This record gives sequence, structure tokens and C-alpha cells, in this order.
Amino acid sequence: MAAWWRAVRGVLLDISGVLYDSGGDGGGTPIAGSAEAVRRIKASGLKLRFCTNETQATREKFVKKLQGLGFDISVAEVTAPAPAACRILKERGLRPHLLVHNDLVPEFADLDKANPNCVVIGDAAENFTYANLNEAFRVLIGMEKPVLISLGRGRYYKETDGLKLDVGAYMKALEYACDVEAEVVGKPAKPFFESALAEMGVPPQQAIMIGDDIVNDVGGAQQCGMRAVQVRTGKYRALCVCLSTCRRMVQFLQDTGGVFCGQNPSVERGCSAKCDFRGSLERKPSPVCQPSFRELLAL
Amino acid sequence: MAAWWRAVRGVLLDISGVLYDSGGDGGGTPIAGSAEAVRRIKASGLKLRFCTNETQATREKFVKKLQGLGFDISVAEVTAPAPAACRILKERGLRPHLLVHNDLVPEFADLDKANPNCVVIGDAAENFTYANLNEAFRVLIGMEKPVLISLGRGRYYKETDGLKLDVGAYMKALEYACDVEAEVVGKPAKPFFESALAEMGVPPQQAIMIGDDIVNDVGGAQQCGMRAVQVRTGKYRALCVCLSTCRRMVQFLQDTGGVFCGQNPSVERGCSAKCDFRGSLERKPSPVCQPSFRELLAL
Repeated sequence: MAAWWRAVRGVLLDISGVLYDSGGDGGGTPIAGSAEAVRRIKASGLKLRFCTNETQATREKFVKKLQGLGFDISVAEVTAPAPAACRILKERGLRPHLLVHNDLVPEFADLDKANPNCVVIGDAAENFTYANLNEAFRVLIGMEKPVLISLGRGRYYKETDGLKLDVGAYMKALEYACDVEAEVVGKPAKPFFESALAEMGVPPQQAIMIGDDIVNDVGGAQQCGMRAVQVRTGKYRALCVCLSTCRRMVQFLQDTGGVFCGQNPSVERGCSAKCDFRGSLERKPSPVCQPSFRELLAL
Repeated sequence: MAAWWRAVRGVLLDISGVLYDSGGDGGGTPIAGSAEAVRRIKASGLKLRFCTNETQATREKFVKKLQGLGFDISVAEVTAPAPAACRILKERGLRPHLLVHNDLVPEFADLDKANPNCVVIGDAAENFTYANLNEAFRVLIGMEKPVLISLGRGRYYKETDGLKLDVGAYMKALEYACDVEAEVVGKPAKPFFESALAEMGVPPQQAIMIGDDIVNDVGGAQQCGMRAVQVRTGKYRALCVCLSTCRRMVQFLQDTGGVFCGQNPSVERGCSAKCDFRGSLERKPSPVCQPSFRELLAL
């Protein structure tokens, strides 16, 4: 086992696509083995922090749903974008126009929302209507200096009934229309990971991020000096595993003696020639490997 | 009068924001003086081509509406993106998944749409629902090599009840989500302007484009070697007139003896310090001036 792995003291855990697939009547389906994996991490003495870009509900509601699905999780263990955004809005005296999910609105209850001087966009899901997008656009374009704050920059995510566009896609629409750059709160923003690390009291060199998003989970964590694992569940797609990442992946496998991936043929498949991040390989972060979360913990 | 202006033999005319503001119960409101201006251009012997990114209706329906608003216009005089896209789809054997306005669908009647191998996006307006965007996204992301064809790249436009997001914003959302670059048909694509010029039988040096969109009308025409005028109606906003364009504007005014702008104080206001294309000035094209279409023709 590699030296760094023995030094790991804290685990940052993405939720959607790692612990469960969201959507459907019950609010989601647990991914097999994940509830047990969370219990094992906690029993091992490792510090654990759930680090999510979830913005479809208040943390209270979200955690309650996960508890109902069998997960050992509490509100105090969750780092999420909305509370982080509220702190920023208060610090800067910003009054938000909200384009967010109805269930997230209570997180912003304390803020003055009259005569808005910024737009906050989250994963509004069904609230991403033509009318609501036009309204947010008109608020933004009407400002002398448009301020757009985005609760994440995810491209898409998986629900039980298929892939859905995430907040990042709608953020890009508003950015383009108004010729502005959004300020991103949540993964992959560095302050967001740093806040989670601080809450655990663990330095980045002793922490590992586990997620299904190559950019927001893996890339964001790496930028903060953490190691990161991309699981094969959730939005993971073989296409996202690129030739350019092979060397670092193989080196990592050697370093770790295959601790994560030795029994996981998909890593080799992931390194095959089926590789097309469509001309933007260089900009993509490299995951260390792609086990399922269950496989990862079982090894 | 400048030599080049005496040489002008053809006029390319944008429609929405120049001739009329779209939207509302009657389908739009004519901009004062525009119908008369069209008649005067035609009476002057100048060749005229309506060059529009309109994709909310078939050309037949669109032209009928404009005739009802008092404009002298026929289908044969209109260059529009949908017919141009159809030609491309047929040439390349592409079967489109359509994310367009219901009224545009008949333009694609002749094409095989089973088992789609590309997505065509137009200004779908009310069809830009959360469900439809997710569906287009899933079709795209499911392709080995996603092909996204966009009927324009406009940021927004003005309707009678206010500014609306245009197809370009939604194009950007899909581009980002799928990590692809759309192929744009319509303004500002060079082949689109070239096609309109060919239909008039006028070389670019002898043509002028009149529009309200600094990028799609003015910039696109300039890239083809044409001169271009940005009118102050439609989506025109003082913010879009930048300090960086002043020198060229002033030079143009001197060249032309102020023929377009001599009686138009708004040009000077446009050159004021109220200038913030937010760090991307260099990439923006420069209009020659900003009269209203009526003023332009009255001079």
C-alpha cells in the first residue's frame, strides 16, 4: 500500500451518483453497497465529510431523504453550496434574484430580496422554464455590472429516469446572453473544498475526494492538493476516461499496488482507445481510477 | 458623400428589431417609418434582400405576417436559416432531432427524422422547456460524435413585452453540457451572407447590411467584406457601443461626411465613457453608426 494512502485521515464524499441516484417517486435509489461503505468509513475512524453540490433541497430535507434511504448522515456533516452562497451574499450586501429549486428557497429566507442586485442560479430543475430563464436574464442585463452567482457548474447528472442538464448548462446560457462570467460557489471552487477540509480539521495531503464527476469532484479536489477517485457509478461514462490520463493512472496503480483497482478490469477498459473528450483533453483533470464506491471500500 | 456609398448597389436588411418588434397578440409592432423605408429602397433601384435569423415560423407564415403589418416583402426575397440547414442536412445525410418552434417544423417536412444523428436547435421560444432541453441533451450525449446545428447564435432579442433569450444562449447550454461546438447556420456565418449576396447578384464591396445586432448583423457582414450599420431600434443598447469603436466610427463619419449620423446625437452618446462590454471589447465588431432605420433612410 502506498505511503500516502496510509496517511489518509479524511474522506470527502460526493453524494449524488456515489451514494444514490436521485429522481423518481421515492426521491432516489441507493447504489448497492454504499450505505454499508459509509458505515465502514465511519467505523474505521477516518473523518468523513459529505461534499455535495446538491441544490434541489435544503440540507435538512436532503439529509432526511438520505436517512430514509438508509444512510448514516447528519446535517452537520454536509458541506453544500447554498449556505456558502448566503455567507457571500451577506458579506457583500447582495440582494439575490433566485433561480433555484422551490425546495431550496428557505435557505435564503434571511436575505433581503427586494430590488435585486445579483442573480443566484442553482439546479432549479422544473423551475428552469422559458419564462423563469427570461426573467433571470432581464434582471441581469438590466444591471450596470451584472453579478451572477452559480451554485455549482456541473454539466449534467443522472437521475433514475436518465441524464439531466445541471446548473452549469443554464449558467453558461446566462453568461453568454449577458457577456458575464459567473462566480461559482460549490465544487469545483477551491474555497468550497477548503471549507470542507477545515470543517474536518484535515490538511489536503491527508484527504481523499470520492466522486463521479471528473471535473467538479476529481479536478476540484486535485486543485486543492487532494487526491481524488472517480467512481464508475452515477454520471461516469467510459468516454470520459482518456488516453491522456493513462500514464498517471498506471503510475498511481503501481504506487498503490493496485489497491483500488487491482480487481477492477474497467480501469483497463477506461484506458482503451475509446477516447474523445473532443479536443479538450488537456484541460481535463485525471482521476486516479474508476472503481465503484462499493468495490473501492471492499478492497 | 463617400465614394463607397455611391457604389452601393444592394442592401441586406435584418427584420426583427429593424422593421418591427416581434411578440404580442398581433405577432409584432412595426417600427415607425420602416415600411416606408422599405418602399423607398425598392423605388431607388437598389437591390434588396431580407436577411433574417427568424426561426419561429416558416418563411411563408413569417412573410404573411409582415405583409399584414404593411411591409412590401415576398418569400423569394428572404434568406433564412431553416432552408439553409435543410440543404446541409440533406447533403450530409443527417437525420435531425428538432428543438425548434412548432411553426418552423414544416420547413423540415422532407427530412427523415427517425433514429436521429444530429440535433438542430432554433429559437424554440416556449418549446425551450426543461423537458425538451433534457431530451435534446440526451440525444446529443448519446452520439459517438455529437453533431449540433444551431439556426443562429443570437444572445437575445426584443419582443413587445421585453427582451428574450435567443437560440445562442440555449446553444451554449448544450455545447457546454456535451463538450461540443455547434455548427451555426444563419447570421453571422459567412456562407449565409454569401448566399444572400449571390441571390442579389451583388459583390460584398457594393452591399451594406442594416441590423440591430452588433455581432450577428454588423460583425458577420464585416467578415464578408461588407459595410454595416447598426440601428438604434430593436435590441440596441447604449452599452454595446464601445470606446474602442470610436476611432473607426469617427473616421467613418468623416469619410461619409456624416451622411448617416450627422443629425444623430446618439452616436456621440454611444461613444461616451459608458462603455463596458466587460473585458471582451477586442472581440466585438464595430458598427459604422447607430441611426434608427427611419433616420438612416431620411438622410
